[in-house]
Amino acid sequence: MPDLDETHDPGRKSWVASANAADSDFPIQNLPFGVFSRDTGTPRVCVAIGDQVLDLTFLEELGILTPAGSDRVFHTGTLNPFMALGPEKWTAARRGIARLLDADTPLLRDDARLCEVALVSQADVRMHLPFTVAGYTDFYASREHATNVGSMFRAPDNALLPNWLHIPIGYNGRASTVVVSGTDIRRPLGQLKGPQDDAPHLGPSAKLDFELELGAVVGQPSAMGQPITTAQAEQMMFGYVLLNDWSARDIQVWEYQPLGPFGSKAFGTTISPWIVTRDALAPFRVPTPERVKQLLPYLDEATPGNIDLQLEVDLRPDGAEPVTIAQTNAKYLYYSAAQQLTHHALTGCAMQVGDLLGSGTISGPDPESRGSLLELSWNGRDPVRVGDRTRTFLQDGDSVILRGWCEGEYRIGFGTCEGTILPATRMPSDP
Amino acid sequence: MPDLDETHDPGRKSWVASANAADSDFPIQNLPFGVFSRDTGTPRVCVAIGDQVLDLTFLEELGILTPAGSDRVFHTGTLNPFMALGPEKWTAARRGIARLLDADTPLLRDDARLCEVALVSQADVRMHLPFTVAGYTDFYASREHATNVGSMFRAPDNALLPNWLHIPIGYNGRASTVVVSGTDIRRPLGQLKGPQDDAPHLGPSAKLDFELELGAVVGQPSAMGQPITTAQAEQMMFGYVLLNDWSARDIQVWEYQPLGPFGSKAFGTTISPWIVTRDALAPFRVPTPERVKQLLPYLDEATPGNIDLQLEVDLRPDGAEPVTIAQTNAKYLYYSAAQQLTHHALTGCAMQVGDLLGSGTISGPDPESRGSLLELSWNGRDPVRVGDRTRTFLQDGDSVILRGWCEGEYRIGFGTCEGTILPATRMPSDP
Repeated sequence: MPDLDETHDPGRKSWVASANAADSDFPIQNLPFGVFSRDTGTPRVCVAIGDQVLDLTFLEELGILTPAGSDRVFHTGTLNPFMALGPEKWTAARRGIARLLDADTPLLRDDARLCEVALVSQADVRMHLPFTVAGYTDFYASREHATNVGSMFRAPDNALLPNWLHIPIGYNGRASTVVVSGTDIRRPLGQLKGPQDDAPHLGPSAKLDFELELGAVVGQPSAMGQPITTAQAEQMMFGYVLLNDWSARDIQVWEYQPLGPFGSKAFGTTISPWIVTRDALAPFRVPTPERVKQLLPYLDEATPGNIDLQLEVDLRPDGAEPVTIAQTNAKYLYYSAAQQLTHHALTGCAMQVGDLLGSGTISGPDPESRGSLLELSWNGRDPVRVGDRTRTFLQDGDSVILRGWCEGEYRIGFGTCEGTILPATRMPSDP
Repeated sequence: MPDLDETHDPGRKSWVASANAADSDFPIQNLPFGVFSRDTGTPRVCVAIGDQVLDLTFLEELGILTPAGSDRVFHTGTLNPFMALGPEKWTAARRGIARLLDADTPLLRDDARLCEVALVSQADVRMHLPFTVAGYTDFYASREHATNVGSMFRAPDNALLPNWLHIPIGYNGRASTVVVSGTDIRRPLGQLKGPQDDAPHLGPSAKLDFELELGAVVGQPSAMGQPITTAQAEQMMFGYVLLNDWSARDIQVWEYQPLGPFGSKAFGTTISPWIVTRDALAPFRVPTPERVKQLLPYLDEATPGNIDLQLEVDLRPDGAEPVTIAQTNAKYLYYSAAQQLTHHALTGCAMQVGDLLGSGTISGPDPESRGSLLELSWNGRDPVRVGDRTRTFLQDGDSVILRGWCEGEYRIGFGTCEGTILPATRMPSDP
């Protein structure tokens, strides 16, 4: 766990006034990294500060912020080169950015011409995928979620499979369809077969769902053939994003045996545009829940592995007001991101800069804290009230908006992770 | 299926004499693409011709072979930029290379100084991974393999799950550990739990296995949210490699429910260094086996989807002679690579230049045609004779060598795909 330092001082203020509002997701103690562009310009690396973005690509060009000395790392429109520098440089860069934005630092504050280029309103920029996703792995780390799903599809007294309390269960997902918040998601076609059908048919999914997850961004590689410790895994973690693992439950139930989910989860995964750094989250670390069974020693953690991160799902039916349909917390996860990463590398799987680890759906102990419509509607049995409408699964035009924030002496927000469902397409025919 | 043209003329000879030997894997009708380096030099793109490689990076620099006109595609040490050009350019480049190597073409043949740089003995080069693997997906497309595995772990009368005859079942694998032939493979550590054990323990896999597969290399992308037809899928296919999907059966059996194989198959996947093009394989295309159940129309193919490709597995125990332990054929695959790719994109999964699709273990109808030790030894029950030794699973120091070739009026060989097992490492401990 990173040390607390002046970047965590709750009394610190920024000369960017909007960052000092108590309800801002992006105070000077946060400084999440992202990639933005203006109009038709090329993507540039930035941090969020209040309602503005600070253009790090520009500051590096000027020599004001040079995390890699004479080399450039902010010029490719993706955070991967910066992440490759490693945790000491991440911490140093964060300290440098905080100093530049500190209320007492005149360098940018008093230079209107410099500020005009370096600082842009978030309302005027387009956010991009903040890093090139090397590999996307999705875990299944919430005991409540695994228990709910197991209860629905097997039986409540046999809900958790025998391996679940020993292994951070996960599977490889599809990196090519990880997209940034705001990207529309097309309802997938797939093979569908009801329990009474003789054979499957082709059609659009009728059980389209979201999954509220936390995404961990791996910023350092590991070597093929070489396991890592949880302490090493913790050091490899650059930061976290909100993640929506869109899922087609009816396609999934027909395809997933014996090799796991495939097309039912490959049509889109949405992440929030801001990577909130491990450093910024240091004051909000909490231990994982009490172990039901003792873990093997390679999964032991010397420092608290979880994050006390409040999470919320809003559903906005086409043309209506958004309604909050679930509230939960990332602290419920049974396995931390460092445990997931350690297990991932155990057999010798090489980890890469830019790997993304989804936590799996985060559900809590209460019915309102379930992180998917599958659970909220109990597979369609109990329609969910959304204002004056109801939903069992998602309809075309529905938007799902995830939010997350840590609340203490200040607020570390994740911004939003949003996507809207487009109607299914037809199968193409050959010319 | 590509048209047959002068590049398929069985009477054609090359001025590279070794290419005209009847047993050469690499006659002028083949011309598989790869990436090589000399000594400490940088990786360069090439084709195999007889026992030589032809340096395409050099020929592009000279302006002798320019598939992208004034742009360069052979300068990055990987085939991805060339693949991105699309099938018309692939075919044109292949024709151009065949002309350069034709016995009647003097340009290189009669220029000893040029040849000295352009042509290098395969014995003097190191081969590299021929392309950057964007995503690695592993299918399960052999009915015989799926039936064998189902018979072992469920029951012979219930061997195939209900979805298998309708869906080309597959799962996302791990791209970061796809390595080129000749790379050593370290025996993985993992969680192991015998049926009688109360709890799992950590240890090296005792059931380390190979899987004989055909790898299809996707050379063209598809858009997110957009399904493709089998005809489009066929056009997107650049070529094929041999593939060994190393598997730890004891880790797999404990981890794989409910989300599929993970660490048990993530520690290494070996491919042969030469991508044999779809064009070169055109004369050897054969239909997939008769359908047991009618497929949904989106999987229908207008042209023969399979390849009549003979396959062989040699096992070389440490210090001993190699022994052939399995012989089979890629024509047994129930689902073609184009069907696999079409199904992959069905839900809207974006495909990328450099995606690699493993066929799944290729087993045939006979006991000798089984493509894994799991099947050959029937999960350890029937030890396999390897010269004067026996094997149930792989031991440290064992090498596995895959070979493949099409045989007709000439031979289109795939070369070899080889890997050697290193002993397991220990878990690291924190400093």
